[in-house]
Amino acid sequence: MSAADFGHAAFLSDIPLEEAQARWHAALDAGGVHNADVERIALDDALERVTAEPVFARLSSPHYHACAMDGIAVAAAATRGATETAPVVLRLDRDAFVVDTGDPLPPLTDAVIMVEDLEPRGEGRVAIRAPVAPWTHVRPIGEDIVATEAIVPKRRRLGPADLAAIASGGVVDVQVVRLPRVAIVTTGDELVDPAVIRPERGAILDSNSVLLAAAVRRYGGIPVRYPRIPDDPARLDAVIGEAIAACDAIIVNAGSSAGRSDFTARVFERRGDVLVHGVAIRPGHPLVLALAHESAGRRVPLLGIPGYPVSAAICAELFVAPLIERLAQRDPPDPATFEVTLTRKVFSPLGEDEFIRVVAARVGGRIVAVPLRRGAGVITSLSRANAIVTISRFTEGVHPGTTLPARALRGVGPIERTLLAVGSHDVAIDLLAGALADRGIELVSANVGSVAGLVALRSGSTHVAGTHILDAASGTYNDVAVRRYLPQTAVALIAFAQRAQGLIVAPGNPLGLRSLADVAARRARYVNRQRDAGTRMLLDALLARDGLSPDAIEGYERLEFTHLAVAALVADGSADCGLGIFAAARALGCDFIPLATEPYELAVLAASLDDPRIAALIAAMRDPALRAAIDALGGYDAACAGDVRVVELQPAAAV
Amino acid sequence: MSAADFGHAAFLSDIPLEEAQARWHAALDAGGVHNADVERIALDDALERVTAEPVFARLSSPHYHACAMDGIAVAAAATRGATETAPVVLRLDRDAFVVDTGDPLPPLTDAVIMVEDLEPRGEGRVAIRAPVAPWTHVRPIGEDIVATEAIVPKRRRLGPADLAAIASGGVVDVQVVRLPRVAIVTTGDELVDPAVIRPERGAILDSNSVLLAAAVRRYGGIPVRYPRIPDDPARLDAVIGEAIAACDAIIVNAGSSAGRSDFTARVFERRGDVLVHGVAIRPGHPLVLALAHESAGRRVPLLGIPGYPVSAAICAELFVAPLIERLAQRDPPDPATFEVTLTRKVFSPLGEDEFIRVVAARVGGRIVAVPLRRGAGVITSLSRANAIVTISRFTEGVHPGTTLPARALRGVGPIERTLLAVGSHDVAIDLLAGALADRGIELVSANVGSVAGLVALRSGSTHVAGTHILDAASGTYNDVAVRRYLPQTAVALIAFAQRAQGLIVAPGNPLGLRSLADVAARRARYVNRQRDAGTRMLLDALLARDGLSPDAIEGYERLEFTHLAVAALVADGSADCGLGIFAAARALGCDFIPLATEPYELAVLAASLDDPRIAALIAAMRDPALRAAIDALGGYDAACAGDVRVVELQPAAAV
Repeated sequence: MSAADFGHAAFLSDIPLEEAQARWHAALDAGGVHNADVERIALDDALERVTAEPVFARLSSPHYHACAMDGIAVAAAATRGATETAPVVLRLDRDAFVVDTGDPLPPLTDAVIMVEDLEPRGEGRVAIRAPVAPWTHVRPIGEDIVATEAIVPKRRRLGPADLAAIASGGVVDVQVVRLPRVAIVTTGDELVDPAVIRPERGAILDSNSVLLAAAVRRYGGIPVRYPRIPDDPARLDAVIGEAIAACDAIIVNAGSSAGRSDFTARVFERRGDVLVHGVAIRPGHPLVLALAHESAGRRVPLLGIPGYPVSAAICAELFVAPLIERLAQRDPPDPATFEVTLTRKVFSPLGEDEFIRVVAARVGGRIVAVPLRRGAGVITSLSRANAIVTISRFTEGVHPGTTLPARALRGVGPIERTLLAVGSHDVAIDLLAGALADRGIELVSANVGSVAGLVALRSGSTHVAGTHILDAASGTYNDVAVRRYLPQTAVALIAFAQRAQGLIVAPGNPLGLRSLADVAARRARYVNRQRDAGTRMLLDALLARDGLSPDAIEGYERLEFTHLAVAALVADGSADCGLGIFAAARALGCDFIPLATEPYELAVLAASLDDPRIAALIAAMRDPALRAAIDALGGYDAACAGDVRVVELQPAAAV
Repeated sequence: MSAADFGHAAFLSDIPLEEAQARWHAALDAGGVHNADVERIALDDALERVTAEPVFARLSSPHYHACAMDGIAVAAAATRGATETAPVVLRLDRDAFVVDTGDPLPPLTDAVIMVEDLEPRGEGRVAIRAPVAPWTHVRPIGEDIVATEAIVPKRRRLGPADLAAIASGGVVDVQVVRLPRVAIVTTGDELVDPAVIRPERGAILDSNSVLLAAAVRRYGGIPVRYPRIPDDPARLDAVIGEAIAACDAIIVNAGSSAGRSDFTARVFERRGDVLVHGVAIRPGHPLVLALAHESAGRRVPLLGIPGYPVSAAICAELFVAPLIERLAQRDPPDPATFEVTLTRKVFSPLGEDEFIRVVAARVGGRIVAVPLRRGAGVITSLSRANAIVTISRFTEGVHPGTTLPARALRGVGPIERTLLAVGSHDVAIDLLAGALADRGIELVSANVGSVAGLVALRSGSTHVAGTHILDAASGTYNDVAVRRYLPQTAVALIAFAQRAQGLIVAPGNPLGLRSLADVAARRARYVNRQRDAGTRMLLDALLARDGLSPDAIEGYERLEFTHLAVAALVADGSADCGLGIFAAARALGCDFIPLATEPYELAVLAASLDDPRIAALIAAMRDPALRAAIDALGGYDAACAGDVRVVELQPAAAV
């Protein structure tokens, strides 16, 4: 194996998104790619299916002259001359017949008089005080549907009212467009089933098959999953050959890049015409679009989707969705777009359209969007996001405060009921989120550290800021920092828990660490937290107290963003220790050396205490069941959860 | 049977919609109505399901330190000192290891250098010209997901990215909210299956079960259809008892009004608390909402839905949808609202909120809405509509030109691709609609007659006006009328077909009618068309030509709106004849006595000939396959279809 094996990157092109889309759709048009197959199915199975032809009525509706009111049916001529002062009296079952809505009009009658307009006169007689015109309150044959006419047109996606109209026309089955079958072919020596108990290092859990199958189903197709195959162009070629015969489109994942084991584009070339290899989007760049040679009278679209999960999801949305909509003859869903204000500066390369996953929430009068992590491998950036913002390839990025259009991923409903928590990370937040979900609120947290959380609160970019900032001088937590970062704003602190902070170490504490002095002395490999994290500040305060320099700590510059991430590195053996909370150590099976106890609090604007979301937050925190669940994590005392105190305003002169 | 049986209408109340909704939801809250049941299902079945608890990661992702680029893995320390001018040379398989994206980081390495930054030096060596920091291009353990953390929260409706994230965490099944089971109990002596070949008079095709089952499914529940039962309160009560034990909610249809056979409210009263009986909405008034007494620890909601199909659909949307969303813990779909301009004056009673079904289409710069027929029994008013406009109970109606918010029934996509044809009715329009559907255009026609169509064209309320107006003086069609109604506008007439008009008579022509003189002489029962219909004008012209007075025609005042409706009445025997086109006579099995041949043309603004929808219309009409299909209807000559002529402008002085 040599460096010469590396040489394929140059094959990837960089064409803009719109050009790739135009080239692809033109090729699909020219290749006559559509789904001409139809099937006849029962009406009960036809919800959301698309008609392949107009549905013609077998019967008229009504199929007889129907009474449209409860009352009496009469011959209109018999009512002539009735007035307020000279009522006409009718004899039941002789010249007036009691009818209910829907009854057939009795013979020799041609109108219905409503029950409300009748005066019972006893002895089977009723009086009326106005004449009635022929065909009054009668639904004549075919009023709604005339036999032979089209009830619903071709290409209608059938909804409940369509199905009811069709049934009213006496039709109980319909000709619909067959659902397109989309092959999902997954390649990769390293892929294993997500159910594997203990995957080996290097084994990749095959989550993309799950993603793509679900995406195909959501867009209106039937996913056809082929068994995973290794990185072997001959095997891939053979499976594609099978799939061309059996399916309407083929997705290959992954191998779409230009690396040593990326055969997709080359196999597509053998099987058809490659239209696009490489699109200037991020994530999603190494995409392959091709059209198979004609076989059995059709040309099957081939899509090579990149392997990074976010890339795969973005490419599915941009290219698989419209393809399936074409094959299924469905309209795309209405785009759910809205304006968001970005809370952070975002750099983005010129020349690439970038899809930034964000958490959007209504804070104050505007909808703010917090960008999530941008790696193409970070699938949780998509599952945590509720919207996507596109940064155009013509700009190098956007400033905080910029307003941009965003696309909702799950509708705007979830955005309106999102409670944003930007700040310090705490493991117990997951439990709080569950309690809030029961109250219809989606708590989303962005882990940026305590200080960044307070800054976000100041700039109106979050509802809540989780914080635990030690003021070394006074030995108190949070109040000093709140006054520093929000000097003239009324802020409330909601107590969440007292929690233990300490050294997270491997099981059995093999290095025998008892203090930070031990960490320094034994040159233990430490993992630190990012600047502005409360835990990082705590470390610095403890080092200062113990007379240690940061330089004495090996790994002081190695940064993670959460307690759990620190514990994961320790659990794996790639670090020896890190400062964090007991719950994180316990979750990952590590040992824990307590060094401090601190309050973790949620800062909110005092003015927002009336907001129903904040009120629900406080109520949830005061729920004994939640407190008990938090205590059960270990290292927490949640007896104070939900206590609210307002931080005293600094005198204006002191600012 | 006597008039005393009529006395229940007074039980119906008239409470406003918001009050009914508030009362209902408060009762559901107080009754603790929710769906606490959960089930564990495989990830592959979990798309669109709602999580009942957070999903916690079993494994971290990545679960090992993963290379994030194709390239070489190195110990960062070994790259120290490399510069542009003093490259460092690394030996493959000794201090540099070829890796692909996703590979585990080899032992004793802590960084990856991209293939693009390498210079092959032969003999298994590569050079680099910059040092690399530790952990560069490495995805550390847990970068995406840390084992034990919550991957998705409780109450998440699972999309493809959620499923992929869950799989990435090594989880392959999830705890979800059980789908709510909704009983559909249909009552009515007169109901028959829509498949019945020849229903008796008075038999009503049970389309409401189809409607309600589909609605329940669309809203996220499982419909449980009970066998239809007759109008018998004891039977209804027994079935409700069964359904309370088996289902989460019960819909009874119909019997919700206050007529002779409307038992629903009384049966509900026995089974629980009736909260609402009668809501001030139209259609949909006779609605019953109740909550069953507690049984097995729960109170099951009971809904009595009115029998008229549009009423049933509206009530389902207003009351069944939110109930199922509550039970399924789903968000409602985002409302698709937009502004429309009404084309017609609409009267609506004070005190009732009325839901007007409309066809909306973009004409010129605005979206116009054509109100459809308003009867609660006209299910096609809902299947033809693409939007609904609400007329508030505080107004008596709205003027044409009024702008109102509308709600899209199938998204805004179909509205943007709707081509509106307002004017004269022609049976062949169904065929044209099918041809346009293949071109992605939804042709919707409103049958208002030729003159009303030209007026709509003038007011910018339609794209197309089907027209056949005879100018008796000149014996020509359409041009004179176009100049009368659009005197100063450039109008184009697109030929559709020459068609035969004549008398539609019963099979075998039992009255031996040969002419309008015969109709008058034999006092045949005639059905006329509405004022301003071209066919009505033709009748008047033929009567004048033959020296007959309208008074001589029995039924001159009996009006229908379409050729097919006229033919249906003749076919049924409730009329002896009517003027209409051959295709309608043939469709209903009637005989036809030709009296005239006339051009049927589509008028459009000349300026709109460039509109892609109009261009597609003309292209579709010129398609020989469509022409042949129209000819095959009989009575048509479509050789001219798609020929365009522009009507000469009247000199301004002459206006």
